[in-house]
Amino acid sequence: MPHEFDAQTAVRPEGDGRYAAELAEGWVVGGGVNGGYLLAVIGTALRATFPAKPDPVAVSAYYLSAARPGPATVAVDVRREGGRVATASVELVQEGETRIAALATYGDLARFGDDVRTTATEPVLPPPDECVANTLAPQEILDLAPMMGRFDMRFHPDHVGWAVGQPSGRGELAAWFRLVDGREPDPVSLLMVLDALPPVTFDLGMMGWAPTLELTAHVRARPAPGWLKVRHRTRNMAGGMFEEDCEVWDSAGRLVAQSRQLAMQPRTS
Amino acid sequence: MPHEFDAQTAVRPEGDGRYAAELAEGWVVGGGVNGGYLLAVIGTALRATFPAKPDPVAVSAYYLSAARPGPATVAVDVRREGGRVATASVELVQEGETRIAALATYGDLARFGDDVRTTATEPVLPPPDECVANTLAPQEILDLAPMMGRFDMRFHPDHVGWAVGQPSGRGELAAWFRLVDGREPDPVSLLMVLDALPPVTFDLGMMGWAPTLELTAHVRARPAPGWLKVRHRTRNMAGGMFEEDCEVWDSAGRLVAQSRQLAMQPRTS
Repeated sequence: MPHEFDAQTAVRPEGDGRYAAELAEGWVVGGGVNGGYLLAVIGTALRATFPAKPDPVAVSAYYLSAARPGPATVAVDVRREGGRVATASVELVQEGETRIAALATYGDLARFGDDVRTTATEPVLPPPDECVANTLAPQEILDLAPMMGRFDMRFHPDHVGWAVGQPSGRGELAAWFRLVDGREPDPVSLLMVLDALPPVTFDLGMMGWAPTLELTAHVRARPAPGWLKVRHRTRNMAGGMFEEDCEVWDSAGRLVAQSRQLAMQPRTS
Repeated sequence: MPHEFDAQTAVRPEGDGRYAAELAEGWVVGGGVNGGYLLAVIGTALRATFPAKPDPVAVSAYYLSAARPGPATVAVDVRREGGRVATASVELVQEGETRIAALATYGDLARFGDDVRTTATEPVLPPPDECVANTLAPQEILDLAPMMGRFDMRFHPDHVGWAVGQPSGRGELAAWFRLVDGREPDPVSLLMVLDALPPVTFDLGMMGWAPTLELTAHVRARPAPGWLKVRHRTRNMAGGMFEEDCEVWDSAGRLVAQSRQLAMQPRTS
């Protein structure tokens, strides 16, 4: 049996750069299908397009309309191949309507070298057993967000005040993360992880859904097996929009993926 | 007389979403034409495409090959219009070869509201007259980078050690910025400003050219007239690549644009 993540992100080549996908019910959250999951579906089609360059290096996705569970087509248009990386324009389409327009550069991260020189600092989290599990969420939240059933997420106890009406106001969320059935992280699954936590605006006391306009992911290394650490931060809310920066760190203490998204501020009462 | 920036970023509509541009010699730097300038040329074509939504909100550009001075075509393919924003896929093409593939969302920033809630902090810079002007660069640098003649840039004295072989190693550059002939900043010119400073890797002692793979710009507000403050930072150099984050602050002390790019680490001797 394949892991559920692999079954749910699988694509079937139909020729001419087109791939058929089936968007799973299990990734619904709020008004649509989770954007990170959609990015992983697109990422799977791109991996199939570039067998010798199987890893996402940079992916920029513009979310044009909300996706629904069911059939979808990923249409890949290779814009440049040759050298160390390849770049494609991609669209995810349902019923003739573009859900996501994206650009992506792929490569082979294993051949990019192991040098690291960083001033970024790993999130400090208590051990997973001392954190707050997503499975503790009230049933009405789980009903609204079936996606929560796809992973084991353990929040820093200082970052879940919003769940009891006491957001910290700092604009930061951090959690341990792994897929439920032991499926280990890889570069394509990291595309999903970058958009799996609740919106960082929860920590600012805005509990609504925050639609993404644009998300750009950079995958910087293949992740080691085991728990990931994920951190969301925002600094600038202005003009009804905010930026959300995400970092994913692997069990070896390496910063393996970064993203920034521009999202609409949730409407709050 | 138009300002030189407007003359050099002008486009002529040719129908079917195609615009003719003439890339100016004056924006050459190292091996090609500056990527920020190219983004402003693309941005001008998009502004012409969306008269009621004249401002870039998010633009993601993938740099596929080096552009040269001379004629170019910007081809705009509108992917969604209606509502508060419009999104297009865009390519900048020379001699049949795609130089840049981009996605962009445009809107009217004046209608996005004035609320600001930020923890971002403005760069602290001595007054422009106490900073180090780009015009002081040695003639061989100015010959390699005619682009330096397009603007007045005043570096923080603590951020130019690299010019005398003493980089700080912090991975940070900050400077005052304005266009030479008094042309005030606007949302499209900010696209250029986000990629106008030298690569932040200069501050890490790597003096070579750092080719951009991908750059995503978010314009968050229309800038006030006057000097801009620009700051580049990097935190993570790994696998031969680094991310460069840029912030642009206007004379009213507002964070008006943010970008992140993924670039190739310069080859150094």
